[in-house]
Amino acid sequence: MKFFELQAQNGKARAGALYTSRGVVQTPTFMPVATQGAVKAIGVDDLNQIGAQIVLANTYHLYLRPGSQVVEKFSGLHNFMGWNKPILTDSGGFQGFSLAHLRKVTADGFIFKSHIDGSVFNFSYEDVIKFQKTLGSDIIMPLDICSSTNQTKSQVEESMFLTNKWIAKAKKLQINSDQCMFGIVQGGMYEDLRKVCVDKMIDLSFSGYAIGGLSVGEEIDVMYKIVDYTANILPSDSPRYLMGVGSPENLIECISKGIDMFDCVLPTRIARNGSLFLDSGRINITNATFRYDDRPIDLSCSCYTCSQHSRAYIHHLFRANEFLAYRLASIHNLNFIINLMKEIRKSILSEEFDKFKKEFLSKYNSSDRQAQSRQKMMWVESQKRKGRYKI
Amino acid sequence: MKFFELQAQNGKARAGALYTSRGVVQTPTFMPVATQGAVKAIGVDDLNQIGAQIVLANTYHLYLRPGSQVVEKFSGLHNFMGWNKPILTDSGGFQGFSLAHLRKVTADGFIFKSHIDGSVFNFSYEDVIKFQKTLGSDIIMPLDICSSTNQTKSQVEESMFLTNKWIAKAKKLQINSDQCMFGIVQGGMYEDLRKVCVDKMIDLSFSGYAIGGLSVGEEIDVMYKIVDYTANILPSDSPRYLMGVGSPENLIECISKGIDMFDCVLPTRIARNGSLFLDSGRINITNATFRYDDRPIDLSCSCYTCSQHSRAYIHHLFRANEFLAYRLASIHNLNFIINLMKEIRKSILSEEFDKFKKEFLSKYNSSDRQAQSRQKMMWVESQKRKGRYKI
Repeated sequence: MKFFELQAQNGKARAGALYTSRGVVQTPTFMPVATQGAVKAIGVDDLNQIGAQIVLANTYHLYLRPGSQVVEKFSGLHNFMGWNKPILTDSGGFQGFSLAHLRKVTADGFIFKSHIDGSVFNFSYEDVIKFQKTLGSDIIMPLDICSSTNQTKSQVEESMFLTNKWIAKAKKLQINSDQCMFGIVQGGMYEDLRKVCVDKMIDLSFSGYAIGGLSVGEEIDVMYKIVDYTANILPSDSPRYLMGVGSPENLIECISKGIDMFDCVLPTRIARNGSLFLDSGRINITNATFRYDDRPIDLSCSCYTCSQHSRAYIHHLFRANEFLAYRLASIHNLNFIINLMKEIRKSILSEEFDKFKKEFLSKYNSSDRQAQSRQKMMWVESQKRKGRYKI
Repeated sequence: MKFFELQAQNGKARAGALYTSRGVVQTPTFMPVATQGAVKAIGVDDLNQIGAQIVLANTYHLYLRPGSQVVEKFSGLHNFMGWNKPILTDSGGFQGFSLAHLRKVTADGFIFKSHIDGSVFNFSYEDVIKFQKTLGSDIIMPLDICSSTNQTKSQVEESMFLTNKWIAKAKKLQINSDQCMFGIVQGGMYEDLRKVCVDKMIDLSFSGYAIGGLSVGEEIDVMYKIVDYTANILPSDSPRYLMGVGSPENLIECISKGIDMFDCVLPTRIARNGSLFLDSGRINITNATFRYDDRPIDLSCSCYTCSQHSRAYIHHLFRANEFLAYRLASIHNLNFIINLMKEIRKSILSEEFDKFKKEFLSKYNSSDRQAQSRQKMMWVESQKRKGRYKI
C-alpha cells in the first residue's frame, strides 16, 4: 500500500492520510512530543482520549536513557512506553543545535558530551538509523545539522552539504519493512540552498520530506517565506513535515502553504506554565482574574479537563503547586491543537479552508510573534547556562 | 438513617458501613489525602478507577488557599474539586503540631503565621467549624491540640483539657443537616488521660470518634498499646478513626484492634520517591535492578499502572524525571492500600480475618519500624528548616 494518500487540496492546503502498520494518520496532523518516551505530565490513556494519532520521540534522548539494551529487551519503543499507534522519531539533529556547546561535528555525525553525565559518545548517521531500527519507529529521521541564524551563508552551505552526505549514506542503510524514512531539507534562510537540498532529497527519494532548521529564532515572516518556497518545490505526492512548529497561528499559516505534519513542545511546555489555548488566544490561568471563575477553561471544549474542572480549580492547583495542574493543563492544550487539526482537515475536505483560516485568525489574538521567538531562544540560552537542556 | 452500621465482627476487627448523603463508605476504609483539594499527582478519574470511597482534605490548607470565598462561590469543596463522593476534613489540629513553630495556642484555638506568606491569622475552634460548613464536608473534625512525644505528662494533660473544651464548644455550633461531626481523643501516650478524654467525648456524643496524637514519632509498640486501649473503651456502635496511619502493616494491626477508618499521606508520598507496595513488602523502583524488568510492578495487581506499564518503564520515568512517574506510582500505591482494605473487609465478613492477617504479615516484609518513624520525623524537621511544611 502507498504510504501517503493526498485526499483533497484547497488552495495549497492539503488533506491526506499516512498508512502505517500501526494505523492510519489523517493529515494535517500534529504530533505530541514524547521526548523521553512520555509526553510530559500526561499518560497514554490521556493521549488516546485526546485522539492523538501519532507521537514524536527523540533518538538522542532515548539513546542515552533508557538506552539501546532496554529498548531491545522490549522489542521497541511502542511496547516500552505502552503506545501502539505510530511513532516518528527525531534524529537528534536538533540536539546538535540546542546542545551545540556539548558537541563537535565529525565527518559522519556528532561527538556529544552527554547532557546527563558528561560522558563522551559518538553519534553518527549510522548509529542514529541503527537505533531507530531498534526503537521500531514507524517514521525514521536521518541525522542532520541544523544551522543557527547567526551563521554565514557559507557556513550554512557547508553544513547543508555535509547533511546531504549523511542522509545519502543513511538512505542506503537497511531499515525494517514496516518502517519508512523521511528526507530532511536544510539550507537555513536561503532559498537557493533550500532548492539544492530539495533536489538532492527528491533524487534520493524518500517516503516523506521534512523541512528542518526553521523556528530557530528567525523572524516569523522569514520562516513563512522559506516554508512557502520549500513546500512549493517538494513533491505533491509525499507528506511534508515542518519540524518544531508550533503555535495555533503558525500551524494554520503553514498548512495554508502546503504542510501536512507538525511537532512542537510548545502546547505542553506553555501548559506547564499555566498558559492555555482558547479560540480567542492564550490565557494564563495563574492570573488572579481566574480565582473565582467557575467556567471551564473553554466552554466549547470537550477535553477531560474542561468536562470536569473549572478555571478556578486549575488556577488553585497552579497556585498550590499541585502536580495535577500540569496534567490537566497539558490535556487541554494538546486537545485544542489536535482538535484544531481536525477542524482544519474538515474545512479542507469541504473546500472551506480559507474561510476557516480567516475566521480562526480573526478571533485568535496571537501573542506578539517576535516576543514569542525571543522567548524561545531565551529559554534555550537559559538551559545552556544550567549546563543541561531538556525538551 | 443511622450514620454507622456495624455489619460484622471477627475478634476485635470490624466490618461496617458509613451512610452519608453522598453514598456509602464500607469499612474498614482508607481515605486518600487530598490536602489542598487534590490527591497529589493523580486526578479524580484516577481516584474513581482505584475505587476510593472517601477522601480527606485539610481545613487549615484550604482556609489559606483557595480560601473561604472561593469555596463559597462553588457551594463547597465537592463541586470545587469535582469529587462527588464523601469528604472528611481534618481540622488543622495536626498543622498546630507540625507547624508548632508558626503558631501560638490561645484560649479558643491557634494564632497561625501562614506557611505561605507569613501573614498572621486567627484559627479558632469556631472558625474551623464554620469553614467546614462552607466546605460542605460530610464528616467534620473539630480543632484539637496534638501533643508531641517530648512533652511532660502535665503539658499533655493541659493540652487535652483545652482540646476537650474546644470540642465541647464546637459540638454546640450548628452544622448542616447532611454533615456530621466526630469527637477526637487526645491524651498522648497516657492511658489514664486517654480514658478521661474518651469519657468526655462519649458524654458529648458524636457520630464517630477519632484517635489523634499518634504516629507522631513514638515507638510503634507504644502506638499499638494506646490504639488497643482506646479502641476498647470507645462505643462499639460508632466508627473509630485512627488519624495519620499508615503503612500496610500498621493498618492491618490497628484493624485487629478495632479501628474502622484511616488516612495517611504515606502511600502517595513514598510513591513520589519511587517506593512501591508489593505483597512481599516495598520495592524502590529507581533501583538499577529494575532497569530491564518487563513485568508489571505487581503481577496480581489490577490497577491502571500495572495493566499498562512495566517496572522498567516506570524506572525509566523516575530516572528521567518525568512527571508521569509520580502519577503512575501513586495510582499503584493507593490501589494497593484500598484493595488491601477490601480484602480485609472480605476476610472479616467470612470470619477469616486472623488467617488473612497472619498470611499477609508472613509475606509482607515491613521496613524497620523505628527507621520508618524516624524518617517521618526527620521529614517534618526538614520541612521546618525550609520554613514551610507541606503535606
